[in-house]
Amino acid sequence: MTVKNHCQGTVETSSYRMDEPLVLESGVTLGNITIAYETYGRLNTERNNAILICHALSGDAHAAGIHAVDGRRGWWDIAIGPGKGFDTDRYFVICSNIIGGCKGSTGPSSVNPETGSPFGVTFPVITIRDMVNAQKRLIDHLGIRQLYAVAGGSMGGMQVLQWGVTYPEMVRKLVVIASCAYSTPQQIAFNEVGRRAIMADPAWNNGDYYGGEPPVQGLALARMVGHITYLSDASMHAKFGRNLQDRKNIAYDFSMEFQVESYLHHQGDTFTRRFDANSYLYITKAIDYFDLTRNGSVIDGLRKIASQVLVISITSDWLYPAYQSQEIVSGLTANETDVQYCELRSNYGHDAFLLEGGQLNYLLSRFLSHTVVRDVMINNVPTIAERASITDAARLIIEKQVNHLPVLSGDHRLVGIVTSWDIAKSVAHRHENLEAIMTRNVITTTADEPVEKAAKMMERHTISALPVVDDEMHVIGLISSEGISTLVGRCS
Amino acid sequence: MTVKNHCQGTVETSSYRMDEPLVLESGVTLGNITIAYETYGRLNTERNNAILICHALSGDAHAAGIHAVDGRRGWWDIAIGPGKGFDTDRYFVICSNIIGGCKGSTGPSSVNPETGSPFGVTFPVITIRDMVNAQKRLIDHLGIRQLYAVAGGSMGGMQVLQWGVTYPEMVRKLVVIASCAYSTPQQIAFNEVGRRAIMADPAWNNGDYYGGEPPVQGLALARMVGHITYLSDASMHAKFGRNLQDRKNIAYDFSMEFQVESYLHHQGDTFTRRFDANSYLYITKAIDYFDLTRNGSVIDGLRKIASQVLVISITSDWLYPAYQSQEIVSGLTANETDVQYCELRSNYGHDAFLLEGGQLNYLLSRFLSHTVVRDVMINNVPTIAERASITDAARLIIEKQVNHLPVLSGDHRLVGIVTSWDIAKSVAHRHENLEAIMTRNVITTTADEPVEKAAKMMERHTISALPVVDDEMHVIGLISSEGISTLVGRCS
Repeated sequence: MTVKNHCQGTVETSSYRMDEPLVLESGVTLGNITIAYETYGRLNTERNNAILICHALSGDAHAAGIHAVDGRRGWWDIAIGPGKGFDTDRYFVICSNIIGGCKGSTGPSSVNPETGSPFGVTFPVITIRDMVNAQKRLIDHLGIRQLYAVAGGSMGGMQVLQWGVTYPEMVRKLVVIASCAYSTPQQIAFNEVGRRAIMADPAWNNGDYYGGEPPVQGLALARMVGHITYLSDASMHAKFGRNLQDRKNIAYDFSMEFQVESYLHHQGDTFTRRFDANSYLYITKAIDYFDLTRNGSVIDGLRKIASQVLVISITSDWLYPAYQSQEIVSGLTANETDVQYCELRSNYGHDAFLLEGGQLNYLLSRFLSHTVVRDVMINNVPTIAERASITDAARLIIEKQVNHLPVLSGDHRLVGIVTSWDIAKSVAHRHENLEAIMTRNVITTTADEPVEKAAKMMERHTISALPVVDDEMHVIGLISSEGISTLVGRCS
Repeated sequence: MTVKNHCQGTVETSSYRMDEPLVLESGVTLGNITIAYETYGRLNTERNNAILICHALSGDAHAAGIHAVDGRRGWWDIAIGPGKGFDTDRYFVICSNIIGGCKGSTGPSSVNPETGSPFGVTFPVITIRDMVNAQKRLIDHLGIRQLYAVAGGSMGGMQVLQWGVTYPEMVRKLVVIASCAYSTPQQIAFNEVGRRAIMADPAWNNGDYYGGEPPVQGLALARMVGHITYLSDASMHAKFGRNLQDRKNIAYDFSMEFQVESYLHHQGDTFTRRFDANSYLYITKAIDYFDLTRNGSVIDGLRKIASQVLVISITSDWLYPAYQSQEIVSGLTANETDVQYCELRSNYGHDAFLLEGGQLNYLLSRFLSHTVVRDVMINNVPTIAERASITDAARLIIEKQVNHLPVLSGDHRLVGIVTSWDIAKSVAHRHENLEAIMTRNVITTTADEPVEKAAKMMERHTISALPVVDDEMHVIGLISSEGISTLVGRCS
């Protein structure tokens, strides 16, 4: 088997303008909402191969590929693309910028249509659930009734869990990476330091800085603190040690002497060129508010989740430590939810979910891919019309060398099935039309059904083939016990 | 045995003004240095029971007792006092404010005598070694030739190791708590965030703010970041959880909603009333520079240490993780230095060395106290003058019911010893004066010698008692094998 692992190619960001306003968790109604989003791969005709990717604090809709405008590579390009964990040859992958953000979706830097000026701090406080409710609108807009999966790391993982709780019937699989069921006081504390840094910067000007100089000092400082928490002690050791920057000896002054200082300043300063300080305030606040527990119980809080769940923690992540992932796993297990737990073994700290492509893609592929009926079904199945004669059916069976002939109505829907055994029966009983010998109440399957399920059905009913139909009972293929046994031989 | 555990009582801070300038590690010469210090307990006549306590980033000279001026309790009062780990009934405990600080010792807020204005950023950059060199001057000034111990946590522990390396013959014991042999990039990164917070505050004004409003916003922010690193995830959970401050429901605004936010702001704001922002810059810089490794080797870096060392780490300390203490222990062990390693089991994080009094005092007592000759010697030993007759000696032995009589010169120095066995000998050989029968070249011991050492000496020379003398050969007591065996009986 050849492993493909390509980049998604050039991509563009789209915009969806909601018709209806959104009532936020705070009770405030927010209208004129725009959602920036990108998609990769193709939505299949059954519209059931869509995967929604949720981004973290500083992310955006540009998750994969090379952006057509600025040439940037997507933030999760290591995991999204042909042959990767989120395999765009199989799945239709969607990523949208959260509301409250500053990358095309409505947020504090957007113009308030009522005033003609940017919202600033008049923008309503939003929550993780608000972000998810906005994404739900986008998914509806794309005509998707059920998502195959929702996946994300860090704050993205919070959105994933919220999807599972708020829209349990809409998601088949959840992937929660380096995240939690509630923010801890330590996480809140770090966020509050970042907010204080921004709000203490005179340039912040109570959030009203869009006409002038933004609070770059405060935002850079917030990002520096954040960045330390995304790395690990070990990865900083490996990356910087106690190396000096551009000098050989200690200077005994307050310049940026150590490489780690220079790096942090660079990270902080770069961030101010791509992120809005007010969005930083709003998004960190949403993280702080995040708490899926009910009456202090993670079990109760996650009870509504009906999806299959993969929880991944990172060994060196001290911002979202493994015990927080394990709490999710314990809660889901107590609820008898189908949950798998894996650890990414990495020294990269919290950021490992953006870096450890190898392990991540392996875990994602294993969890997302299953062999479905589509993978082993026979396409272009010969069928026969309901009004055909038994002789016509017999000739087709011999000519096409098949054993099963789906019988279609005038509008091409499946109404029955006829087999060579039925033909033999007609000779014995001297029947002359299909109606008399064909089986009605045909047992069928769908293209996205796991193969195991189809096999069990055939065994239970002692039949050797199942027509594969779409929602409108059009026959799109046929799965036979021979096909399945070939597959089993191939896998073993 | 009654355990005493009292407070030191009311204490005052003293000042020592150095006569000579100090050449700093940077090469700069700093004159007119003042060191603020406090002492607890009494220096014994041998001047060998002194323990120097080194403070951490935000500490000062007021380590124990109740301050006479402001009524504050010392920062390490849990460990210093009568009957505590640093037992002021036995030891003479000294704590001084570091140079670069702002609590009475010369630092950036001190007036530069050359300009008549506070130094601000014209103050020279100082290092941990500079702090220790200044302390050395104080110790000399107090007339102490050897310290019984130097002890400290966090940055205090760095000074302790530096003492051991720079003045190996001056320290008998080192106690290094929650510290390291070198600062890691993560520690440097957190310090740099604090510095940037201060320097980005317009009120900092390039360090020249002493006439006006200090950079309270920046300093408070620096302290908030620091404070998070001093606590642990678990202790924050236990202390705050996700509790709201003064309200029952989420407000959906940017006020301080969570208790942890309110607490951090309080810590930050309080700190600005007691600490100088420039000192924060200088001290964190000294921490960053701290690196005792030589050619990348902790072993080489610690090779000069000749003291007995106790290294203590804290299980939940993530700022100075246990592995950093273990590196010190490994290095010392490789050098065959006498080192003990203990872990404080605590959820309090880095701050545990200021809080876990019970465990800490147990470990300190065990390490610092050993039974010394003073503890078991006989005081008020009968002696006899060199010129006395044998008959006088015999009468004294019978009257006082002793076996050993130290013989003193005219100026009361020990010149020999005479025993009942010597008296018997004189009868046999008809000697008449002490001179003929007494033993000269007496083997002696000192009050602070470990009992084990005295016992071994007696065994080696098959003698049953040793006079205990001071530096000038005055007899201050006598230790006998009976006294030691009584002690052994009491301990077993």
